[in-house]
Amino acid sequence: MPQYKAPLRDMRFLIHEVLGAEKQLQAMPFYKDNDTADASLFDQVLDEAARFAENVLQPLNMVGDQEGCVRSEDGEVKTPTGFKEAYKKFCDAGWTALDADPQYGGQGMPHLLNIAMLEMLNGANIAWTMYPGLSHGAYAALSAVGTEEQKRVYLPKIVSGEWTGTMCLTEAHAGTDLGLIRTKATDNGDGTYAITGTKIFISAGEHDLTSNICHLVLARLEGSPEGTKGISLFLVPKFIPTADGQPGERNSVVCGSLEHKMGIHGNATAVLNFDGAKGWLVGEMNKGMNHMFIMMNAARLGTGLQGLGLGEVAYQNAVAYARDRLQMRREPRLAPDEKADPIIAHSDVRRMLLTGRAYNEAGRALALWLALALDTEFSHPDEAKRQEASDLVALLTPIAKAFMTDNGFNIAVQSQQVYGGHGYIREWGMEQFVRDARIGQIYEGTNGIQALDLIGRKVLMDGGKKLQQLAGQVQALIAEVEGDEDLQGWAAQLGKAADQVATLTMVVGQKAMQDQDEVNAVAVDYLRYMGHVVYAFLWLKMAKVATDAIKAGQDKDKFYTYKLQTAKFYFEKLFPETKSLSTTIKAGGAAVNVDLSMFGVES
Amino acid sequence: MPQYKAPLRDMRFLIHEVLGAEKQLQAMPFYKDNDTADASLFDQVLDEAARFAENVLQPLNMVGDQEGCVRSEDGEVKTPTGFKEAYKKFCDAGWTALDADPQYGGQGMPHLLNIAMLEMLNGANIAWTMYPGLSHGAYAALSAVGTEEQKRVYLPKIVSGEWTGTMCLTEAHAGTDLGLIRTKATDNGDGTYAITGTKIFISAGEHDLTSNICHLVLARLEGSPEGTKGISLFLVPKFIPTADGQPGERNSVVCGSLEHKMGIHGNATAVLNFDGAKGWLVGEMNKGMNHMFIMMNAARLGTGLQGLGLGEVAYQNAVAYARDRLQMRREPRLAPDEKADPIIAHSDVRRMLLTGRAYNEAGRALALWLALALDTEFSHPDEAKRQEASDLVALLTPIAKAFMTDNGFNIAVQSQQVYGGHGYIREWGMEQFVRDARIGQIYEGTNGIQALDLIGRKVLMDGGKKLQQLAGQVQALIAEVEGDEDLQGWAAQLGKAADQVATLTMVVGQKAMQDQDEVNAVAVDYLRYMGHVVYAFLWLKMAKVATDAIKAGQDKDKFYTYKLQTAKFYFEKLFPETKSLSTTIKAGGAAVNVDLSMFGVES
Repeated sequence: MPQYKAPLRDMRFLIHEVLGAEKQLQAMPFYKDNDTADASLFDQVLDEAARFAENVLQPLNMVGDQEGCVRSEDGEVKTPTGFKEAYKKFCDAGWTALDADPQYGGQGMPHLLNIAMLEMLNGANIAWTMYPGLSHGAYAALSAVGTEEQKRVYLPKIVSGEWTGTMCLTEAHAGTDLGLIRTKATDNGDGTYAITGTKIFISAGEHDLTSNICHLVLARLEGSPEGTKGISLFLVPKFIPTADGQPGERNSVVCGSLEHKMGIHGNATAVLNFDGAKGWLVGEMNKGMNHMFIMMNAARLGTGLQGLGLGEVAYQNAVAYARDRLQMRREPRLAPDEKADPIIAHSDVRRMLLTGRAYNEAGRALALWLALALDTEFSHPDEAKRQEASDLVALLTPIAKAFMTDNGFNIAVQSQQVYGGHGYIREWGMEQFVRDARIGQIYEGTNGIQALDLIGRKVLMDGGKKLQQLAGQVQALIAEVEGDEDLQGWAAQLGKAADQVATLTMVVGQKAMQDQDEVNAVAVDYLRYMGHVVYAFLWLKMAKVATDAIKAGQDKDKFYTYKLQTAKFYFEKLFPETKSLSTTIKAGGAAVNVDLSMFGVES
Repeated sequence: MPQYKAPLRDMRFLIHEVLGAEKQLQAMPFYKDNDTADASLFDQVLDEAARFAENVLQPLNMVGDQEGCVRSEDGEVKTPTGFKEAYKKFCDAGWTALDADPQYGGQGMPHLLNIAMLEMLNGANIAWTMYPGLSHGAYAALSAVGTEEQKRVYLPKIVSGEWTGTMCLTEAHAGTDLGLIRTKATDNGDGTYAITGTKIFISAGEHDLTSNICHLVLARLEGSPEGTKGISLFLVPKFIPTADGQPGERNSVVCGSLEHKMGIHGNATAVLNFDGAKGWLVGEMNKGMNHMFIMMNAARLGTGLQGLGLGEVAYQNAVAYARDRLQMRREPRLAPDEKADPIIAHSDVRRMLLTGRAYNEAGRALALWLALALDTEFSHPDEAKRQEASDLVALLTPIAKAFMTDNGFNIAVQSQQVYGGHGYIREWGMEQFVRDARIGQIYEGTNGIQALDLIGRKVLMDGGKKLQQLAGQVQALIAEVEGDEDLQGWAAQLGKAADQVATLTMVVGQKAMQDQDEVNAVAVDYLRYMGHVVYAFLWLKMAKVATDAIKAGQDKDKFYTYKLQTAKFYFEKLFPETKSLSTTIKAGGAAVNVDLSMFGVES
């Protein structure tokens, strides 16, 4: 059975040494006043979160996959053995409240810590983690645009974990294209609405972990315009809260069935039937899509963290197997007294392991950098800093979602490969990681949609302004490492690729003015290219810290040496993917402008 | 539920127009004398095979996945509903005998046709296809090195399909490294041996399709040397044939359990316990590894065909879904009367579809080219031609196995992606293709092992002789297309990459003299590079035929136009991967020569 060990040393390296988080958070009154901008507090929290992930959640991971969720005839859903008890422990320890506002019972810790925790929870058990994970979106939406009454009634319950939240967007005929949704809202005339329609693919849509579930539902008020401009967001609780805030009357939203999926069996993916269910408008009428994006952006980073967590746990187990499994000789011998050497002695196996390691460590750096930017966006006293952080978050979010889940899936596949035939057998647990990792590339906006979001909305729409800010940071780093001879090769690789971004963006942007298809045709390659530029930037940043530490004689456990060796692998073996990508991006959309009759489309 | 339509038009294009198979086979007395080198016969056979695959096998594909195989307490195994009946139909129609020698009841058809059929069977139902598929290895080994008695007793039964065969190689501690196997053979002194040991991962190792199963087992005769030099091959039937060739006494080989796997649930993956089972030596004592490779080479091409078949069926269903699924607008509108356009209108979706199409069509060309080379190797009257073909088969087999299964898996994943969330749900069938395709990269020698085989044994061992033969064919083709202006760009791309192969091979070869690890570190990238050179060669070859046909006014159904459009996609969007690969190959092994303590290995 697979094991999981939270990468605490690496997290501390990033939080303290690379990001200097304490100092940055100290500059924000919210954290300073709540006494939560404290490096030693961070370490305590991470240690505790690691213990929970390793000891409580990880042992339930295969159980969840094997048992799945079971729906009874009345529409109630039973989660796998142990899930409910683990959830209670999680709430009792206050984890659901970690980065929530103290006015609703939260602990007021930085998002940074929550993001670090989420990586660990996902590494240990993604299907379980989705139950509390979805609540974050509901919390974000309600606290941003909910009424005072909604905040008063719902937020403390969500923060304490007594109630969970969901995002009810998709319908059978409306996935990417939410403008097509048909779920209707009718004004009851008493400040409530009757919601009617069927939502599908609702993660954590029904379960037995909590006494209530708060559905946030996109629906169309009768008489509203067609398309996305006529969609509003409604809060539809499973049980309507009583005056004293307890779950009261059962609302008419019922789980019609559970999907049978490739993976994440431990999470209930529900079809929800709303049959005149009572709902409350959240935010403004017909602004549902905007409000939905508050939840969605959180969910996208959260999905990236699933890719990271799964990539990390798959990598760790592949390393353990490669150390133990004896096959074939390699001279000089690593295990001279055995009949064969551990397969980690073979360089192709190390190639697979280092691929995982290099992507995971850069992914972790991206996630925590983005998390600190979120804290800055929400809490920095300086508006310019907030705007800068907001732009960075906007630019990096689709990259974090798509690049991290693509890499996570590929790492799961490659780590499974290290196991040979045993990787294909369920009891070893590696194939579960592959199945579980696959969903991250699909939901919360497919990775193709992320790519369109990046190049269209985040890069071209403001004429490359956000991109220039990132380019500025890249140039500053390159200037900063100028004195380090060992880093010059990598700095040059990064610099060249970053310059190329400007060229590629211009080429694509110009073509886009003639034909939107041109953007669509290269978007996925462009996102992957940008992902590499961001990772190369972060690798150079990490390498700089590592080099300084080694010079200062702080490398007794070789942590910094390993960091530099992994950086070298990244720059020599992974980053060169940019060479192919720049070629395919420049080739544009001509190659996909084929005769559609080729696919049997009648003209 | 997914559908499958055999790609007959493309197969005919390759067999008749690209390969000119009839003419080539007419030059071989075996086929000429058996009247089996006949183009219209080929078409009939392919049509019939397609009907069987589409109508009998494909409807059982999801059933097999859902039911799996069930082992009873006595070790007998029940295959999924319908498998047994389908197998009987398959035998009754003579398909098991297709390319077998008439002296054992075979039809004496070219391997070419068998390979084409195997693609169809795998596209329709890979788990089922493995039952008759494994028999091919047993047939090949016995007919190559079996005694006359063994041939007389076993081959007619295997050819008729009454009995199936297996390959019993792997043990729990010995997968890639067969030199470690412990299964023992003791001489009974009567021309038989007592075989004792446990074999794992035995595909089709036990089932209810036939009255007997012929296990070909690697074991070590007592007193034989250690390692691979002390391994012999034994034939161990489940039931010992009586004098009149019927299944007699039950042999002491029993299925101890079935593995629970990620996919191919319809195929029984057995743990087989041999407890003094009676066996007969096949071929020479201690030459078991050599004899095993007769089976293994057939199995490797067969595995490549699994990747191709799954890539094709996944692609076909993604196309169908992309035509039907309405999401988002694209101007000009493809479905102006609907609320959205079919997603095939979006160029990123076409990018995914064309990726599948371009790899599949090149993979099919490789498979059939290799198949015709097999026919030439076995049956050409000219020894020089046989040797040339044999070299080509040796060089192309690891590429066919690894490149085709890697591409097949990636296509399955990308085709699943076209379905969005529905791709993750079992009932749509796309996730089964992903799970089923994953095994091809692992078994019959992992794709990492294929890469070592290619660069080590097939390229460097003879100083690049086989490679030069291929290079000669590439140069000849480039010269042949010189008059076609439209093909010059692609010819130049191919020519440059082919030249680069020589450079890369020299670089790797020189480094290898100092350090074997250097080869090991770049082997996977080298195989992928070579795969692209081979596919580019085949795309140029196909494009030449298509161009000529268009010039001759034969493109009424646009088949040749589509072919050129797909070629363009391949050269502009897929082939550029070679740019990254040449960089990472040149970077060599330095990046993987890390401190092993990084992975917790104690020094």
